[in-house]
Amino acid sequence: MRNNSIIFLDYASTTPVDPRVVDVMMPYFNQKYGNSSSTHKYGQQAEESLEDSRQVVADLIGSKSKEIIFTSCGSESDNMALRGVAFAERKSRGASHILISPVEHHAVSNTVNQLQELHGFEVEIIPVDRYGMVDPDEVQKRIRPDTAIVSVIHANNEIGSVNPIDEIGKICRSRGIRFHTDAVQGAAHLPVNVDSLNVDLMSIGAHKFYGPKGVGILYVREGTPIVPSLTGGGQENNLRAGTHNIPYIVGLAKAFDLAQQGHQERLSHYLPLRDRIINQTLDQIPSVKLTGHPSHRLPNHTSFVFKGVDGNTLLMMLDAAGYACSSGSACKTGDPEPSEVLLALGFPREWTLGSLRVTIGQMTTMDEIEGFLETLPGLIHQVRELITL
Amino acid sequence: MRNNSIIFLDYASTTPVDPRVVDVMMPYFNQKYGNSSSTHKYGQQAEESLEDSRQVVADLIGSKSKEIIFTSCGSESDNMALRGVAFAERKSRGASHILISPVEHHAVSNTVNQLQELHGFEVEIIPVDRYGMVDPDEVQKRIRPDTAIVSVIHANNEIGSVNPIDEIGKICRSRGIRFHTDAVQGAAHLPVNVDSLNVDLMSIGAHKFYGPKGVGILYVREGTPIVPSLTGGGQENNLRAGTHNIPYIVGLAKAFDLAQQGHQERLSHYLPLRDRIINQTLDQIPSVKLTGHPSHRLPNHTSFVFKGVDGNTLLMMLDAAGYACSSGSACKTGDPEPSEVLLALGFPREWTLGSLRVTIGQMTTMDEIEGFLETLPGLIHQVRELITL
Repeated sequence: MRNNSIIFLDYASTTPVDPRVVDVMMPYFNQKYGNSSSTHKYGQQAEESLEDSRQVVADLIGSKSKEIIFTSCGSESDNMALRGVAFAERKSRGASHILISPVEHHAVSNTVNQLQELHGFEVEIIPVDRYGMVDPDEVQKRIRPDTAIVSVIHANNEIGSVNPIDEIGKICRSRGIRFHTDAVQGAAHLPVNVDSLNVDLMSIGAHKFYGPKGVGILYVREGTPIVPSLTGGGQENNLRAGTHNIPYIVGLAKAFDLAQQGHQERLSHYLPLRDRIINQTLDQIPSVKLTGHPSHRLPNHTSFVFKGVDGNTLLMMLDAAGYACSSGSACKTGDPEPSEVLLALGFPREWTLGSLRVTIGQMTTMDEIEGFLETLPGLIHQVRELITL
Repeated sequence: MRNNSIIFLDYASTTPVDPRVVDVMMPYFNQKYGNSSSTHKYGQQAEESLEDSRQVVADLIGSKSKEIIFTSCGSESDNMALRGVAFAERKSRGASHILISPVEHHAVSNTVNQLQELHGFEVEIIPVDRYGMVDPDEVQKRIRPDTAIVSVIHANNEIGSVNPIDEIGKICRSRGIRFHTDAVQGAAHLPVNVDSLNVDLMSIGAHKFYGPKGVGILYVREGTPIVPSLTGGGQENNLRAGTHNIPYIVGLAKAFDLAQQGHQERLSHYLPLRDRIINQTLDQIPSVKLTGHPSHRLPNHTSFVFKGVDGNTLLMMLDAAGYACSSGSACKTGDPEPSEVLLALGFPREWTLGSLRVTIGQMTTMDEIEGFLETLPGLIHQVRELITL
């Protein structure tokens, strides 16, 4: 996808909406525009589309339809899972211990920080290895009878590593503790069956898989203690108030179906491109390291740190040269502080400030990647020269 | 607007998206699709559209641009205002008393109920008169130094009454207590200047004024103590995390501009239609009362109670006869319990179960209204006969 001749290589931050998704959304703006809570025919029409979409999503993740809650984004899903279960578990059985990894998205880490500072919960961090992977044994060691919830990211947005969610989930289940995973990145590229993954709650956002920005899913396993974080009308089984955004919900279902059904096809497009970026970058540029796991990683995701490089300057130069990339997480770009995720992996500061994430999409071609790979080494050299001056 | 020949008379529940609004949204789905948090040109393009939209909204309500927080709906705005200020005021100065009216939208009343039950706040209800209006003197009597927040609905969704928000706001300000109003209905039809209204926080939802469902505004006056209810990335001045829904934000700004700029024109279309419905219904049908204030009410809003009528049966018969109306609030339609709002107005149960709300829109014609008024009396008679059997 080009825009003013800029090649977009930041598909982990967001994606364009697939034209087939836009098509299914359109009738809901001003033809089938009813409020799904209304009893008349306009309302019934909206309600039917809502429930059809819910069933599509449920089938794709192997859940019951009533276990699907539509939210406004992946971040809201994370908030609802953490806040909702933490408050419910504290009220019902006094559990106030929360266990998360140090490589969570800010929608998880900042939420548990607030639960700690404002609401008195105790937050404990599970260590990760140098690839940002959580060892299930470390969860086993730290989980307690008074743990309210465990949350471990499925695939990391900054470094692409995919965690052994199924094994962590098995441990949580055997201890009777609820387990949430942020699958916002992972659901775009990998199967996310809730029973295979052994999760009680799972967050998904549509705009990572060519759906619209502003709609997400929280899967909540039947029987999970949870209080609503957004109260009002009785929508979404009394768990998420607010008039349903039917165009986007219908669009999410369509986009998720395309992503999950077209999974293998997308994979065979992504992998050669991804591996070409990784291999060429590691081969051609001095003092560079791949961040995240070399094989257990998202199929469209590459991420690096360059020693002695200012990541923000590099991004600006790449932008000027016609490539839209990221330093790691769109949610904190521009932040001059080193990434907490990279620090958790044990990289020293002189490396962490030079991070680069290059993520590919359905429209990315090998020609574009070759052009990018011809440009990158010179720019890295220039940025290093700038710093030396 | 017709759908399968059903005339839509439920514009207080939702509206179709104005085609001019759909037009401005379209380029953001798959051309200008950047994540506004990204630093590259795609991100900058999104960020510019975001800030332009924020300025449009700010100008329309007479606020600073940075006082506008984009949310996913009016209900979320209400939640954020109540939860955010209550937690901040309790933390900073131990204030844990909340004052609301009994005619709030459920997004306010159920939120303070949760704040009471789960978080230990004390909620006090300000009485209303038979029109559902809050007397500012009653606020004066009840406001306390340890009041964390006062919330009074601007224009009521069920009964259309418009409260004296400016006077209530003056009292709150003189006592140094933060004041929120839910203007989700009002902002669609009336000027909502935040200084004229003397509010510190104001909730708005786009889908009441021909914008999309799934986007709203919370106005937060500079200096208002508030903690985020949705944590994660630093979006919206660290007050509302989540990737921006740029198409809908741009659409909201356009729709709100059309609504506020076209205010007088819409008014002169609505008032004769509204008054025709009110006068004919009261004249032609026995044992009927207008609910809400006869003059201080929304220009497109009519609402009634019919003695000895089952409201849900009436709605079904109207739907079958080709008219989509509501019993009061779309968020609780189907609920067999009498409306709390109508009970607060002092109506006995035999009246409250027979409520009907007929709200008109930009496309509503006098012919449609005459047809409706010819149909209604016979249906009311039939429903009453059914109950007598």
